[in-house]
Amino acid sequence: MKILPDSLDRITQQFSRFPGIGKKTAQRMAFQLLDWDQEDVQQLGEVIVQSREKLRSCSICNLITETDPCPVCLDTRRDESILCIVEDSRAVVAIEETTRFSGKYHVLGGVLSPLEGVGPDQLNIQNLLTRLDGVKELVIAMNPSVEGETTSLYLVRLLQEKEIKVTRLARGIPSGGDLEYIDGVTLGRALDDRHELK
Amino acid sequence: MKILPDSLDRITQQFSRFPGIGKKTAQRMAFQLLDWDQEDVQQLGEVIVQSREKLRSCSICNLITETDPCPVCLDTRRDESILCIVEDSRAVVAIEETTRFSGKYHVLGGVLSPLEGVGPDQLNIQNLLTRLDGVKELVIAMNPSVEGETTSLYLVRLLQEKEIKVTRLARGIPSGGDLEYIDGVTLGRALDDRHELK
Repeated sequence: MKILPDSLDRITQQFSRFPGIGKKTAQRMAFQLLDWDQEDVQQLGEVIVQSREKLRSCSICNLITETDPCPVCLDTRRDESILCIVEDSRAVVAIEETTRFSGKYHVLGGVLSPLEGVGPDQLNIQNLLTRLDGVKELVIAMNPSVEGETTSLYLVRLLQEKEIKVTRLARGIPSGGDLEYIDGVTLGRALDDRHELK
Repeated sequence: MKILPDSLDRITQQFSRFPGIGKKTAQRMAFQLLDWDQEDVQQLGEVIVQSREKLRSCSICNLITETDPCPVCLDTRRDESILCIVEDSRAVVAIEETTRFSGKYHVLGGVLSPLEGVGPDQLNIQNLLTRLDGVKELVIAMNPSVEGETTSLYLVRLLQEKEIKVTRLARGIPSGGDLEYIDGVTLGRALDDRHELK
């Protein structure tokens, strides 16, 4: 006998469309909605739809934004001659939080992944080539994954002929933690790239 | 500098209202919405609001339902003389899945928890007392927590004077698993309640 009403299943189904939200979590969320006031549920639905409508990608750097161009691209205090290339908007947030970068960004919107059908045309790369006037340095800041690595290499080759310095984030042991627990690849790289202290 | 637009923060905020959904997960969900078609987002918002509106509690057993009384209460093939008392609708689903119970249910809507301000008046207990005519057995099926235990004891005392058999789910070692990994309390109880085989 079917115990749970269809309406609950429909809500569960909607929540489980989010990657990372399994059926159990989605159902738990649907049950939690029952404890909310109708008003709060209404607000949830409205905020999702209305806020999503306002969000777009910056036509210059592809960062998620409400206004086009985005505030970062419009910010004249930023150094236009240095461009940091990242996978997604979350990486921009992470880098901004360090307060160590004052250039501009370029969001690729993903990484090359032939298996998932993501080639250069699926990424925001053509746009990058139109932004290179006056740029002196490109900082490639991909995530340290195989796909990130591949994308970095692709970009380096693509830019080979241009007179632009191309750098990438340093690899090595992360702050905190314990050498004993750091994976071999990371530790090996940290050894290869060791700095001279004196 | 604030990088992420307010609209995204507003969506994140809504998702993080669900217990168990932390700020990071909520933000990840908000970002995922950007990959959805506007239509799909619209559907998400509408399904949440409209389906939630249809859901209510059964006025007899308090099970979550779209129709009142709920299908379980209306089902005449079920044995009215045996009533299973559970914390919430999810427990009803779990018990139904065993196909070993053909009586009716009574959903308390929680457990006694003085620390969280949940007393007998906050639970669906008054209603239970009006349902006892013709009932021969009450199966108490609380979750095996301290609060569940307390609630069971409360119910047993409350029903002391009535001529109704009161039972509760057996405690013991769960199927599968390994004695080595079963906690001491469970194993101790399983020993205390051991069955004679011959």
